[in-house]
Amino acid sequence: MRIVGIDRGRGRVDVAGLSEDGSRVSVLAGLEEFWADPRGWLERAGGEGGEPVASVELVPPVLPGARVICIGLNYLRHVAEGSYRDEALPEHPTLFARWTRSLTVDGAEVPVPDDEDGLDWEGEVVAWVGDTLVDADPEQALAAVVGYSTFNDLTARRAQKQTSQWILGKNADRSGPLGPMVPAGEVGDLRDGLRVRTRVNGEPVQDGSTDEMVYPVGETLAHISRTFTLHPGDLLATGTPSGVGYARTPPWLLRPGDVVEVEVERLGVLRTTVVGSEHRAAAVAATGAGASRV
Amino acid sequence: MRIVGIDRGRGRVDVAGLSEDGSRVSVLAGLEEFWADPRGWLERAGGEGGEPVASVELVPPVLPGARVICIGLNYLRHVAEGSYRDEALPEHPTLFARWTRSLTVDGAEVPVPDDEDGLDWEGEVVAWVGDTLVDADPEQALAAVVGYSTFNDLTARRAQKQTSQWILGKNADRSGPLGPMVPAGEVGDLRDGLRVRTRVNGEPVQDGSTDEMVYPVGETLAHISRTFTLHPGDLLATGTPSGVGYARTPPWLLRPGDVVEVEVERLGVLRTTVVGSEHRAAAVAATGAGASRV
Repeated sequence: MRIVGIDRGRGRVDVAGLSEDGSRVSVLAGLEEFWADPRGWLERAGGEGGEPVASVELVPPVLPGARVICIGLNYLRHVAEGSYRDEALPEHPTLFARWTRSLTVDGAEVPVPDDEDGLDWEGEVVAWVGDTLVDADPEQALAAVVGYSTFNDLTARRAQKQTSQWILGKNADRSGPLGPMVPAGEVGDLRDGLRVRTRVNGEPVQDGSTDEMVYPVGETLAHISRTFTLHPGDLLATGTPSGVGYARTPPWLLRPGDVVEVEVERLGVLRTTVVGSEHRAAAVAATGAGASRV
Repeated sequence: MRIVGIDRGRGRVDVAGLSEDGSRVSVLAGLEEFWADPRGWLERAGGEGGEPVASVELVPPVLPGARVICIGLNYLRHVAEGSYRDEALPEHPTLFARWTRSLTVDGAEVPVPDDEDGLDWEGEVVAWVGDTLVDADPEQALAAVVGYSTFNDLTARRAQKQTSQWILGKNADRSGPLGPMVPAGEVGDLRDGLRVRTRVNGEPVQDGSTDEMVYPVGETLAHISRTFTLHPGDLLATGTPSGVGYARTPPWLLRPGDVVEVEVERLGVLRTTVVGSEHRAAAVAATGAGASRV
């Protein structure tokens, strides 16, 4: 079962099940209705039928006000290749923020901002929170996860590295392609190891396993819940394995025309095409200068 | 003219004008409708009448999907007192993220998380973006600002300082009290200097002026727009002057029962009461465990 968001241009987003062959969607509930009882709606999902995918716009099934909390350094071989390799690994996960506006879906075109030499890939897994968590313990927190998705944390490295804080370079337009949500029961425990692979124009660039994570999902969500309350619909991006582009010699970044794929065992393949910066202004023109969709 | 959000518990937020004496609110538009044309709605605002403030719940007039972009180090005397005093000032502003869920209003009670010795105050000014900005220049970006508000960037220092990235400690529950929006035309240019003062239980702790800012509003928004598109309703928190609590000897943090006020010339006074961590779970119980309001 794969869960997606659909937008028919009526000012609302619905949550739907995608058919096995990916050709049809069956609406489950409105977005807010779904996240008020995600487990209940997932239990009701699964029927075939519905309407052709081609007749709707796919969007992330994400509440606009959800938090996209990202772990920065969670795979030791990625820590070793990057700018923080000479610093001690902190006791707690290094967390940074995306806003939901940066998210997009499988098949999206993502523009390179003018000031960047390209975008860097970061294939990873996102966990979706399904319950409210305040001062949770790791077991409670892990049990609150209702699903997982593939994710590509596409990064504008120049903007990311301009100051000590990363968020500018982590929120470029449409830079967060997010795959359909797969219910947690079909995925199992990430600590048992799901293979995470990234390919650029077909060439393998990342190949890791979720059992390498330093900070597991339950522990990380529990840690976050000590400071702020997690709500249904919040997302945790669990960090990327080694093999990103900027750490290579010479550096290798995604340029317009490149196709990047993130493949995660049991979650599927997430495909993204990189386009030129002119697609930034074009997207604004298409939605109207004053329009605000989220 | 002061603009607020109101919630009557009907699952929608309206934007309203607050009467001169603060006792009544007059609805202007629904939240999304307002941000589709903020200048148009502000021009129509100003009539008296309306309904008693006591009959509604005041909420920030903020779109759930808006970005709250915060400048970390923008006043030289604050840089000099803090952890980054020995590092060179970066060419570009140090930006970090809040999610809108952390925002609250004047008069709110803000809990101290269990793991913290207290919360630290950071009085400042927020600028509200009213237009879409892609690769804007500083003049365009400044002209896009439709209003300003007082803000208290209340910080969970222990969580903030656990790793290189600050966002966990910058998003504690209800830790972002935000005053009413005052239209930009009534405020003028922050570079001309608005006095920003913070008091704890009546005692002055911060006293700065917005003409001290290293990174002005127009330049900062223009810089951001080179990487991601700004949309109407996005917010820029412009950073705090010197005088925060953690940098003092001995450190001074807000404890339950303390009252902190941020007063900004032309924007008014923002008053917040600090409460115990037990108010975190109580707030969840009040809204229902599965409920998701944003």
